[in-house]
Amino acid sequence: MVSHQVPRWSAWIFRASPGWQRTACAPGASVGQQRWPRIPWQVSGPLAFRGCASTAPRVPRVMPTSERYPVQRLPFSVVSEEDLAAFERIIPGRVITDPEELEVANVDWLRTVRAGAAPCPTHHWALPFSACQDSCGVWVPLLGRAGCSKVLLRPRTTEEVSHILRHCHQRNLAVNPQGGNTGMVGGSVPVFDEIILSTALMNQVISFHDVSGILVCQAGCVLEELNHYVQERGFIMPLDLGAKGSCHIGGNVATNAGGLRFLRYGSLRGTVLGLEVVLADGTVLDCLTSLRKDNTGYDLKQLFIGSEGTLGVITAVSISCPPRPKAVNVAFLGCPGFAEVLQAFSTCKGTLGEILSAFEFMDAECMQLVGQHLHLARPVRESPFYILVETSGSSAEHDAEKLDGFLEQALGSGLVTDGTVGTDQSKAQSLWALRERITEALSHDGYVFKYDVSLPVERFYDLVSDLRARLGPRAKHVVGYGHLGDGNLHLNVTAEAFSTALLGALEPYVYTWTAAQRGSVSAEHGLGLRKKDVLGYSKPPTAVQLMWQLKALLDPRGLLNPYKTLPAHA
Amino acid sequence: MVSHQVPRWSAWIFRASPGWQRTACAPGASVGQQRWPRIPWQVSGPLAFRGCASTAPRVPRVMPTSERYPVQRLPFSVVSEEDLAAFERIIPGRVITDPEELEVANVDWLRTVRAGAAPCPTHHWALPFSACQDSCGVWVPLLGRAGCSKVLLRPRTTEEVSHILRHCHQRNLAVNPQGGNTGMVGGSVPVFDEIILSTALMNQVISFHDVSGILVCQAGCVLEELNHYVQERGFIMPLDLGAKGSCHIGGNVATNAGGLRFLRYGSLRGTVLGLEVVLADGTVLDCLTSLRKDNTGYDLKQLFIGSEGTLGVITAVSISCPPRPKAVNVAFLGCPGFAEVLQAFSTCKGTLGEILSAFEFMDAECMQLVGQHLHLARPVRESPFYILVETSGSSAEHDAEKLDGFLEQALGSGLVTDGTVGTDQSKAQSLWALRERITEALSHDGYVFKYDVSLPVERFYDLVSDLRARLGPRAKHVVGYGHLGDGNLHLNVTAEAFSTALLGALEPYVYTWTAAQRGSVSAEHGLGLRKKDVLGYSKPPTAVQLMWQLKALLDPRGLLNPYKTLPAHA
Repeated sequence: MVSHQVPRWSAWIFRASPGWQRTACAPGASVGQQRWPRIPWQVSGPLAFRGCASTAPRVPRVMPTSERYPVQRLPFSVVSEEDLAAFERIIPGRVITDPEELEVANVDWLRTVRAGAAPCPTHHWALPFSACQDSCGVWVPLLGRAGCSKVLLRPRTTEEVSHILRHCHQRNLAVNPQGGNTGMVGGSVPVFDEIILSTALMNQVISFHDVSGILVCQAGCVLEELNHYVQERGFIMPLDLGAKGSCHIGGNVATNAGGLRFLRYGSLRGTVLGLEVVLADGTVLDCLTSLRKDNTGYDLKQLFIGSEGTLGVITAVSISCPPRPKAVNVAFLGCPGFAEVLQAFSTCKGTLGEILSAFEFMDAECMQLVGQHLHLARPVRESPFYILVETSGSSAEHDAEKLDGFLEQALGSGLVTDGTVGTDQSKAQSLWALRERITEALSHDGYVFKYDVSLPVERFYDLVSDLRARLGPRAKHVVGYGHLGDGNLHLNVTAEAFSTALLGALEPYVYTWTAAQRGSVSAEHGLGLRKKDVLGYSKPPTAVQLMWQLKALLDPRGLLNPYKTLPAHA
Repeated sequence: MVSHQVPRWSAWIFRASPGWQRTACAPGASVGQQRWPRIPWQVSGPLAFRGCASTAPRVPRVMPTSERYPVQRLPFSVVSEEDLAAFERIIPGRVITDPEELEVANVDWLRTVRAGAAPCPTHHWALPFSACQDSCGVWVPLLGRAGCSKVLLRPRTTEEVSHILRHCHQRNLAVNPQGGNTGMVGGSVPVFDEIILSTALMNQVISFHDVSGILVCQAGCVLEELNHYVQERGFIMPLDLGAKGSCHIGGNVATNAGGLRFLRYGSLRGTVLGLEVVLADGTVLDCLTSLRKDNTGYDLKQLFIGSEGTLGVITAVSISCPPRPKAVNVAFLGCPGFAEVLQAFSTCKGTLGEILSAFEFMDAECMQLVGQHLHLARPVRESPFYILVETSGSSAEHDAEKLDGFLEQALGSGLVTDGTVGTDQSKAQSLWALRERITEALSHDGYVFKYDVSLPVERFYDLVSDLRARLGPRAKHVVGYGHLGDGNLHLNVTAEAFSTALLGALEPYVYTWTAAQRGSVSAEHGLGLRKKDVLGYSKPPTAVQLMWQLKALLDPRGLLNPYKTLPAHA
């Protein structure tokens, strides 16, 4: 199958007016007022994004996790020279102890959590950011326990992972599995001195079936690279997200990543067909089947999807890839109000039906930050809200007719006031960049308090408005954007720096608000370290208790990704 | 949204010829040779089907399960008069002990398993079929343990289920949850004297959101009734199966039912959003959320999907319903060989893309049995294979164009030699009946050995051919049909009566053959009683051990649906 884009218009711009017309126009231009200079459209992958975030000189230093959060090191063993020698025997040349290499793996890309610095009786609180490596060197002999992680392991095979975990189990050593380290809730970096078990070198495709579209690969394959691989064979990955250039498929599965294609292709719980997992004691659990249907007993792989590395280490994934659409259209539209956004969504579902593949929204402040920090030009007139509608289908002509029908209806009824449609790949990517790079823009705005909630769509934006009124000038920006089609709001609040007072104004307010709507306090980001203690807002005590029972069953010593996902015992 | 059918042709018939033409023709007629008399098309729901199967006088009597399978009663308590009194207090007037009412619940609809008759030292083997109730009466005082189940409970609320299970837990009484009793593997009827806990009266819709299409209902709602309910509101249920007129949604979820819409809407693991479950000790686990995305901790509901009532009793379900398609087309086509069936499937995926909603196949013997036993007319010329292709979409015109494109291509290249298209609801249903009623036709042919396997599609039909050659005249018929689009083959062998010799020729041959292809020995039917001991052909010992650990965690006394799903301990 050869993929091609809708050829009808290279790019066209339209505006709501009595008898609106399409106007051929250069991409990036808008008939509406230009607020920002005409800067060439930029699309940067998450790798660039991460690099940018981590090297920006004005990004504040990262406070050690154990100072910001009430967490105490559990009585695991400390990595010894003998342990390092044992690891060296298992994976020769791939035992990393170089402080510089470790530095990246000890801090999350959002720079909100970092390993290290269990409070010491003398210094009590923070050690300076740059002194982290020194502090490790000083502390270990002094307190008999480590600061940040001192070792990162890079296995290549499942067998190596199994040997490593067996050794750690025997020695009571805690392990932090790490994929692309692109998580949003501090789940992918150590809290103290856990061994970092990286999947970076487990990056081989095992098999691909070019009739069924079933891909089997190691856990460390980067999502974007997998997408390229299957695209060349006429398929696409069933998930897509902003971090695709860095995130690993194993991490995606371990966190049950949602992302931009969820509306069309559904949850990983449906598209992941099989997993290979190494359990805490080193046992390999082979559920790596490639069958669309398999009702032979309990579906054990589901235990590991979304359990954030706390029940086992995913080493390989079998996943069903949908056919690559022959035609993709992206429309970026301005809406006069949130009620109109909702009505546009209903209209969209009715007119686009089965070809609707994304319905994203962002508010005016998001667009302002994307322009201000990333210099991306706003492609349409200024509006209170913007929506991005994507269609993916098998007939360019049919899809364009359906999209035309939607646009005419939406414009005719005033749901949309201005818009542009990207009909070739580069324009579509440029429009997507406006949505995908919001997180990056926010990270340039200061410290970001991030919330990721599921809510009934009718109440979706009320939370943003309420919070804006509640915080007033204490926040730099309160913005809302996200996957409206999935009922998933990303609510972000920026400030000059982290502040406990601001945090106190935000929490538990955001959580109680969400719980009152029977929403989810973590729609797609998971719990990790930063959200584990708010689980109770979305899950009853019986469920939390059962979670703990499962943890005790599968990882009785609690060695896998400790301090994450599970809240403190009642 | 008003649903309507593609109006282009009421029904049309075509044949492969140089320059084939559509010919307006009465439904049910074929241009090809008529082998059966022209009998009015009949569509009968599964209720009629069940009635037919269970009242047909020539259906053989059902041997008690414990005689045909190596199973021994576990040391659970026996229901006492005090227990019955306690149940009567919990659900007054809904404690059923009438033998006639119990009879239906003690036998599966396939009449392959029945409760009762733990071997006694005197009679050793079978008691006559009609004497089952007597045998209970005689045996109980004699041996101090029961034959078939003596009591069926019909709770209406979750609280009642909780009270019942708490009592059973305290008294060490085994419980057999039962929905519509439409299972294929003997999972829904007691093996000995387990209490039957029926969801039949838990049949209320709790809520329906007519924008999102999210339905919340009690577990005992009948699938077909739910489909009618949501259809009136512009949606459809994401699953459909032959037993829809009897099966309960709770049973569908407990068995992870696949069915006819799986190809389009995917697994229940993706579409079920929340569950309410009562655990073995009576604890209510409320995971009944209605959120498309919820990553707050382990997804506990997945434990109960497909666990066949062995880990908990599902009392309510939250499920995401897709919009009702505006246009549905069904094409029923004849293919000259299985290679052409496979090629037609590839062509179909390419040309129909996102509107393809089913691709079913059946062989010539299936069609012969449907004609012989159900008097359904074959709508096309006799062919070695038949396929049923369904499209569901949002534009009648676009869908018809796509379907035309597929048919022209398939006919032009000789993949299809004859066919008919049902473009209104009754014709579409008539064509579907040919596929859906194969199971019924088989049940009229004698004793049926049923297999439900997942295989790579390339090897799909080889198993049927191999088995036909292997069995020769020992079998009346060896037929293959099923969900080709999902890699799911239903392989059925009929004989005059059950025979251990024939069983020996079939098993483990079918299972080793399937395992050699890394297939699944139960694609969608589950394990129940009849398949539990072949789990090892598709799951490694580590997985089986983990299943047992989960069972021990959630139901330490083993009270819930004992003797099912889990194989004998190693």
